[in-house]
Amino acid sequence: MTTTVSAYAANSATDPLTKTTIERRDLGPHDVAFDIKFAGICHSDIHTVKGEWGGANYPVVPGHEIAGVVTAIGSAVTRYQVGDRVGVGCFVDSCRECENCEAGLQQYCTGPGGMRGTYNSTERDGSPTYGGYSTAMVVDENYVLRIPDAISLDKAAPLLCAGVTVWSPLRHWNAGPDKRVAVIGLGGLGHMAVKLATAMGAEVTVLSQSLKKMEDGLRLGAVAYHATSDPDTFTQLAGRFDLIINTVSANLDMAAYLGLLALDGTLVELGAPEKPLVVPFFPLGAMRRSLTGSMIGGIPETQDMLDFCAEHDVTPEIEVIEASYINEAYQRVVSSDVRYRFVIDASTI
Amino acid sequence: MTTTVSAYAANSATDPLTKTTIERRDLGPHDVAFDIKFAGICHSDIHTVKGEWGGANYPVVPGHEIAGVVTAIGSAVTRYQVGDRVGVGCFVDSCRECENCEAGLQQYCTGPGGMRGTYNSTERDGSPTYGGYSTAMVVDENYVLRIPDAISLDKAAPLLCAGVTVWSPLRHWNAGPDKRVAVIGLGGLGHMAVKLATAMGAEVTVLSQSLKKMEDGLRLGAVAYHATSDPDTFTQLAGRFDLIINTVSANLDMAAYLGLLALDGTLVELGAPEKPLVVPFFPLGAMRRSLTGSMIGGIPETQDMLDFCAEHDVTPEIEVIEASYINEAYQRVVSSDVRYRFVIDASTI
Repeated sequence: MTTTVSAYAANSATDPLTKTTIERRDLGPHDVAFDIKFAGICHSDIHTVKGEWGGANYPVVPGHEIAGVVTAIGSAVTRYQVGDRVGVGCFVDSCRECENCEAGLQQYCTGPGGMRGTYNSTERDGSPTYGGYSTAMVVDENYVLRIPDAISLDKAAPLLCAGVTVWSPLRHWNAGPDKRVAVIGLGGLGHMAVKLATAMGAEVTVLSQSLKKMEDGLRLGAVAYHATSDPDTFTQLAGRFDLIINTVSANLDMAAYLGLLALDGTLVELGAPEKPLVVPFFPLGAMRRSLTGSMIGGIPETQDMLDFCAEHDVTPEIEVIEASYINEAYQRVVSSDVRYRFVIDASTI
Repeated sequence: MTTTVSAYAANSATDPLTKTTIERRDLGPHDVAFDIKFAGICHSDIHTVKGEWGGANYPVVPGHEIAGVVTAIGSAVTRYQVGDRVGVGCFVDSCRECENCEAGLQQYCTGPGGMRGTYNSTERDGSPTYGGYSTAMVVDENYVLRIPDAISLDKAAPLLCAGVTVWSPLRHWNAGPDKRVAVIGLGGLGHMAVKLATAMGAEVTVLSQSLKKMEDGLRLGAVAYHATSDPDTFTQLAGRFDLIINTVSANLDMAAYLGLLALDGTLVELGAPEKPLVVPFFPLGAMRRSLTGSMIGGIPETQDMLDFCAEHDVTPEIEVIEASYINEAYQRVVSSDVRYRFVIDASTI
């Protein structure tokens, strides 16, 4: 026995998303069933449904920024009760036994099956996973987050991916007081990085192609905003930053950007550029700078981030849409025409 | 008044090194004068005299792995006395005022003039610096190291560059017990990396093109030795290392080598490859791995390294040569035919 729920799915790389139904599994002893209230639209949803990352198993029901309310719990569930406000992010299971899972870094699971994605992946029994563009979901309680009362569910949704994706490297590389952080790109991830790093006490600078969103950047907490189209930016800011968070997927001029780091500074790539990075040795070795990457976040750090956001009143800037607008929203995301995250009202699915 | 001393110099990028004389400055109040007893031959000496790194100011007297005995001290010198066993490494001055100099990381000096190289650079007054392929030298006491009695002067010389160049990243990235360290290349730097990392308590693996020097590698302390020409090496060792020290200057297949790192592992480039590194995002981001570089070491860490070597009986494997053999030695260094460092007996200069 399964439960039939409404969803929006892509049936091929070229089809628009359309309304359909999918099956959700019966409640297992450790499962939490919840009604989805809101689901964010992440750029990776678009990459996946369009087959740009390869390996899409259609139909794909995207959505890994999911917020809702618990409707039922399995017999062995201890963490959640009916009525709890909960969220699910980019994965719904992992091996739970490898060193990284043990450390709460499930996103780096090295066990069999690895991290099991919230959609376009498989459960342990081989059945496909379907994401948050739907009306209800069943997830093991260990992969469910608690959404603090202070955060509305629509604003909570984007925290589950965009939020934790920038939170994890900001925390890991010690953003905080006396640290100078630059954020490249003011989009879904970038605007959260500005807010979170500012709330952590860091001095935040935005590096954006143009000064078009400067007013927003400063309002969100940045103390400076520079256009990367202006070569003066790179001489003016040379050696300035302890940490650079790159949220754009374009291939940067690495010599120029690494040159903005101080001794022992770190540039974190989040944008997963398609082409390999071209990295001259000198700007690395001459100041012991590091180039690295980071991938979403583990369950404990995601909960930490949600609690931090509640405490510090940090939430994303969103535009709530009806499900029928998804395909148009996708076009606007691709053309960077969103400030700063679309969130689907699941009651319209 | 200056002092005339014998030296070996290159007069152009194509001339062999020949015997000549150079002038050493009179003793200033903070200066230490010392007779050079031994000078190591570093691959960078060859790059510089051949003009391969550009900007050579001929005549070039190479040598930045220098060990000797103090013959005179300036009126204000407090650290050294006549008869002390001393060393000089890759630089003889820096701004002394920037944040990095203050932190004892003079190699990353950002002040006017930066780190002043032991040769092919300039003193503050603009006069050229001449290195260790000579019979005597005058250096400010703040840039002079103390060589512990337990280390013979011939074996001390290579520690001043090869030693500290691997010591600095091993210490900075916490090589020690419970850490798995791989060393790429078993040459002048590589063999010191194996010895030092082993003495620090790390589990050391050598990655070399062939198994030709395997016996040496294991004798020096490595617990494993793998040929990088064998593709099985990369599947067998996937995700194994916390730290990889790359001592070769060839451009590596970054995806393959980064894949050898565990979560949060770091690959340190020391070899200054000529061409930019080509770095795909996935092996970085998928395991939060870092690519970085490191440059020699500061004065305090060089002294720490010398003291550590004395305490742990760590010294380089050397072949002492007469000065007349320098040009032949250069050819042998270029063809990797040295186990593992040539050291010039300065009494033959």
